[in-house]
Amino acid sequence: MAVLTDSEIQEALASLGGWQRNGIAIQRIFRFPDFKAAMQFVNKVADAAEKANHHPDIDIRYNTITMALVSHDSGGVTQRDVRMAGTINKIAD
Amino acid sequence: MAVLTDSEIQEALASLGGWQRNGIAIQRIFRFPDFKAAMQFVNKVADAAEKANHHPDIDIRYNTITMALVSHDSGGVTQRDVRMAGTINKIAD
Repeated sequence: MAVLTDSEIQEALASLGGWQRNGIAIQRIFRFPDFKAAMQFVNKVADAAEKANHHPDIDIRYNTITMALVSHDSGGVTQRDVRMAGTINKIAD
Repeated sequence: MAVLTDSEIQEALASLGGWQRNGIAIQRIFRFPDFKAAMQFVNKVADAAEKANHHPDIDIRYNTITMALVSHDSGGVTQRDVRMAGTINKIAD
């Protein structure tokens, strides 16, 4: 799948609330009331990731979750990442 | 709770297979056959962490999980971290 250009990524981020670039990936930080709520979110995202066969990098710091997406096989951000970021935002809403 | 000295940490690590120091924390990397198995491990550790009210930093990279432990309120590694590392090893066995 084709890596998006800088301007294509900027355009995608404009409609993906909370996401920003971090190196070759896009990421968003999510905060929850406590660890339990954070883990519930992580598990919902994990289920969606398995269904899509596209897995974000996930960092768990008590109630703070960082999700990062990049298509490692393509070497950058693709439409798969943008789609998964949208899915994750829906789960967080 | 008292921060362990360097020699106390070395002594503890000698009986904690797979753990090593990383900055002020101790950490271990766990690899699983796939993401699903990795997430099952993460959830077992999350349950144990809630029970002990002591939460590791958890990084999920598909089938590779990094667990890091430090007592932030004490500013270093304490017996709480050593205990939780032992609990995590039992879960992984």
